[in-house]
Amino acid sequence: MTAAVIDGRKASTELARVVRAELDELVADGGQCGLATVRVGDDFGSAMYERRLERVGCGLGVPVRQVRLPDTATEADLLDVVRALNGDGDVTGILLLRPLPARISEARVFGALDPGKDVEAVHPENAGLLALGTPRFVPSTAASVFYLLDDWLDQTGEDRAEFYRRALITVVGRSNNVGKPAVALASARQAAVQSVDEWASRSGMLGWYTRRSDVVIVAAGRPGLIRAEHVSADAIVIDVGINPSTDEDGTVRVVGDVAYDSVLDRARALTPVPGGVGPITDLWLLRNTVAAGRRRRRGVAPRPIGGAA
Amino acid sequence: MTAAVIDGRKASTELARVVRAELDELVADGGQCGLATVRVGDDFGSAMYERRLERVGCGLGVPVRQVRLPDTATEADLLDVVRALNGDGDVTGILLLRPLPARISEARVFGALDPGKDVEAVHPENAGLLALGTPRFVPSTAASVFYLLDDWLDQTGEDRAEFYRRALITVVGRSNNVGKPAVALASARQAAVQSVDEWASRSGMLGWYTRRSDVVIVAAGRPGLIRAEHVSADAIVIDVGINPSTDEDGTVRVVGDVAYDSVLDRARALTPVPGGVGPITDLWLLRNTVAAGRRRRRGVAPRPIGGAA
Repeated sequence: MTAAVIDGRKASTELARVVRAELDELVADGGQCGLATVRVGDDFGSAMYERRLERVGCGLGVPVRQVRLPDTATEADLLDVVRALNGDGDVTGILLLRPLPARISEARVFGALDPGKDVEAVHPENAGLLALGTPRFVPSTAASVFYLLDDWLDQTGEDRAEFYRRALITVVGRSNNVGKPAVALASARQAAVQSVDEWASRSGMLGWYTRRSDVVIVAAGRPGLIRAEHVSADAIVIDVGINPSTDEDGTVRVVGDVAYDSVLDRARALTPVPGGVGPITDLWLLRNTVAAGRRRRRGVAPRPIGGAA
Repeated sequence: MTAAVIDGRKASTELARVVRAELDELVADGGQCGLATVRVGDDFGSAMYERRLERVGCGLGVPVRQVRLPDTATEADLLDVVRALNGDGDVTGILLLRPLPARISEARVFGALDPGKDVEAVHPENAGLLALGTPRFVPSTAASVFYLLDDWLDQTGEDRAEFYRRALITVVGRSNNVGKPAVALASARQAAVQSVDEWASRSGMLGWYTRRSDVVIVAAGRPGLIRAEHVSADAIVIDVGINPSTDEDGTVRVVGDVAYDSVLDRARALTPVPGGVGPITDLWLLRNTVAAGRRRRRGVAPRPIGGAA
């Protein structure tokens, strides 16, 4: 049996419609929104992400402002930018693009963000609200993983609540921006959750953890980490990896953490890279920016989105 | 084989020595500390906890002030008390005893605490710092679980780091005050972590999750939930349950979530109730109160305690 391919591009068309409707509602209510992306230096990946957000924002009608600092910028420079954006009425969402130069403390800069504009939920208060099961904003990548899962379950006619309550969901990778939020979202759906990191792989135990899992979410940053022998025939595999890979002819492609062809022959369903989680992620960040605008307009907490099934 | 009994009372003697030394150091440095407990109404369990903290604080030399509000107190009354304690120079730690009356929003009251005095880490910012792996304060019960585990591994001559990296730790129960922080602490030790809730039990799958685990931490609030058939012969079982149980003659005793005699005949080690996690918990809260005093004295973040192996 060949696995079903979960098509992120197709799912993104429907989500874009939802976000546009939310934006229309906000504007009709007299509100507004805008995203500011902040980039320090010339990292290739973050420059690519910056351009993509502008394009997607343009398609949705969400203004995206790009703030760029030279590689020589100090922490004080960046904090000045953050404070200015915190006080800027046109900006409802702020995204600090990673990586920051090593001399700048992520914790201090993230902690300086207005939590009400922290649409990627990197401020400790927003990380805490998510951990406590009452998210203000759900980080875009983890939210996208569960958006695709929820959507696919709906399409196949499975009862979501029932599925999650019986499922073991394994998250491979324990980063603050993807792995840990994914565990929080799986917990909110009352699934049994297994969280493993690189040690499971180093000790040769990875397959022991993943083979018994109904869902395997892979966010380890290691190309080809998960192969057919790591998953069961019933597994739904979500690949969050984005790794550059150079072909023999020098072409650079993006590959995931899952050996696609290998797992395609084995699993129940899987997401491709590119065209899986990625297309949803940008939309989600802009959706959070719209939600932040609604929150400011109404002077109340936004409806939590993506927090539970 | 009978399981080893992990003696919380014995371990608490050593921890009390450590906390006294930390207090002496603070005082020598010109600092001070004090805990305020806040209780609304007459809940039996929280009154017991309040008395215990005063007794333990007295033994250590940490002043404990008891603030009591009648059952009729409003949320505004409680918020006034919290704000007054936030501004009170004699108080470095504030503990809001649960349960609060249903008409009072825990989220609003917890969110009003000065995060620097929130020694049980219920403020979203402190929950977030813990989730992000950089705790300011570690909630006392989860901290106590890992204090006992670390201590027992040391005593048996196991290499802690090695043990955790190879271990699967299952946490049964997913409360914000115990289950979720325990998952964060297990993750910080690089263990594989499994988190399950009541659904695992309802679906009859609980044993499937727990039998393969090297460590089972039970914080479900259900007496006798874990029995011999739920654990392997190599398992270390930590019982966080505190349930009232009435004997035939009307005597009320406290029992855990683990069927003690049953698991004693099967597991590698287990904690009793009472006399396991409990005696460490009170000390830990007072330890956090001392750390909060040190933090204020130095005007810097306290050394994280209990965050990692």
